[in-house]
Amino acid sequence: MAARALANTASCKHHVKTKPIVYIFGRNPVAEALAANNGEESSVEKIFVQFGAEGSSIDALRLQAQKRGVPVAIMDKHKFSMLEREITRGQSTAQGVIALVSALKTLSISALIDQAFATEDEPLLVALDSVSDPHNVGAIARSAECAAIRGMIVPESKSAPLSGTAMKISAGALEYLPVARVPHLAKSLQDCKGAGFRLIGLDSSGSKPYTEAIYDEAAVIVIGNEGRGISHTVRQLCDEVIAIPLAGTIPSLNASVAAALVMFEARRQRSHRV
Amino acid sequence: MAARALANTASCKHHVKTKPIVYIFGRNPVAEALAANNGEESSVEKIFVQFGAEGSSIDALRLQAQKRGVPVAIMDKHKFSMLEREITRGQSTAQGVIALVSALKTLSISALIDQAFATEDEPLLVALDSVSDPHNVGAIARSAECAAIRGMIVPESKSAPLSGTAMKISAGALEYLPVARVPHLAKSLQDCKGAGFRLIGLDSSGSKPYTEAIYDEAAVIVIGNEGRGISHTVRQLCDEVIAIPLAGTIPSLNASVAAALVMFEARRQRSHRV
Repeated sequence: MAARALANTASCKHHVKTKPIVYIFGRNPVAEALAANNGEESSVEKIFVQFGAEGSSIDALRLQAQKRGVPVAIMDKHKFSMLEREITRGQSTAQGVIALVSALKTLSISALIDQAFATEDEPLLVALDSVSDPHNVGAIARSAECAAIRGMIVPESKSAPLSGTAMKISAGALEYLPVARVPHLAKSLQDCKGAGFRLIGLDSSGSKPYTEAIYDEAAVIVIGNEGRGISHTVRQLCDEVIAIPLAGTIPSLNASVAAALVMFEARRQRSHRV
Repeated sequence: MAARALANTASCKHHVKTKPIVYIFGRNPVAEALAANNGEESSVEKIFVQFGAEGSSIDALRLQAQKRGVPVAIMDKHKFSMLEREITRGQSTAQGVIALVSALKTLSISALIDQAFATEDEPLLVALDSVSDPHNVGAIARSAECAAIRGMIVPESKSAPLSGTAMKISAGALEYLPVARVPHLAKSLQDCKGAGFRLIGLDSSGSKPYTEAIYDEAAVIVIGNEGRGISHTVRQLCDEVIAIPLAGTIPSLNASVAAALVMFEARRQRSHRV
């Protein structure tokens, strides 16, 4: 890829080493990066277009971004100039377009499955069905890594970017936890089923308390969107849907807390197995 | 209290109704609010002093704030003017001093203990030993309310304020969960022991896995600071110190996730009791 890229670690300060966030700038470089967006090596997480930037190349770029589910934000001129200066060190122009690229190493779903079974006979995975808050994505990755979950499946679109905030909140977990970014979550979950994983959905409408589910087989724990829960299509695929019974007045737990409770309950059951 | 106060809910938007955050301004009103800071009705969480504001009344105020563990922040003139205009609606001057007051209704430790035993024979409480991130304080309150924890004990100083961020993140839980703000955590924990509570500390150095502790008696679960864990004095008081065994590479869970795991493990054990 001929794109001009520059590692910027300023937004990613943490005592744990994390992969750098990379900015790509200029109309052609951003278009190339978008075209190469296969989710395997790096992926364009977000595109910033300077307010007022126009022309056919910008239009084409926006269309391409839309097709690939990459959000495009219009940035006011002053803010854009500041970001541009920071990234280019004043030595170049961004031509009104800057892309935020996650340098996270991700895997294909089949590679993730193979790797999980190579690590453990009955591995556990976690899948995020449209979790939209990067704090939650990062927090779930952190808990998953601590709970011996063997990988995380994240849809390419409709999910918070695996960049800045998510990486910082993950406290380094996104470096160690294998991640598959997949174009169609339902299809990838079917692949998982085909490979022998049970699908356990977590949703407040679930019929079984999470402590009564049995986690001794290979399984994918599916976490739904913070507000809407698990999507209809994914829910249909689940072998069972569990819930966390709440004893108080407020109606829900934070999504990352709920995910941690299930992942660690699975771990508890496994560690207590004879 | 003769202080001029104005409810400001702007920093506290949420679909769940939360108590308003109140600003108090002017040198005498802030001094009075600090003097009345008994943690029962409302409490001064933070004081903003305009850059350049000087004089004996400011000095006295800073000294008083320091004694009571209330943080004082110097705010640049422009920012201060904007906040002042917003609070006073341009109709008054803040005399270089604005205090952020939490309007949260709190209880004394003895009232909290009485109320807990009135609700349940063997109640569970949670205590925060210097948890400094308001996100964690709010998140712990939310999980606690969902897990039928009967109250939260928070030290007056060395803890994140129970305002803005914490209230928002708690998703309304800080309205329902009884809270005691106490001047000396160790003393209040001794009061709890005297009233029949076991003290269970959660710290990464703990000797017993959290799933092997027994939570069938009245107990206070003590959560330590994000980095330093439980303080020496408080640790000495604990009947046992538990830890969450981690299976991965990264060294720790988020404090609010760790707290939730223990609170829900207690609840799981209790719901499975015959």
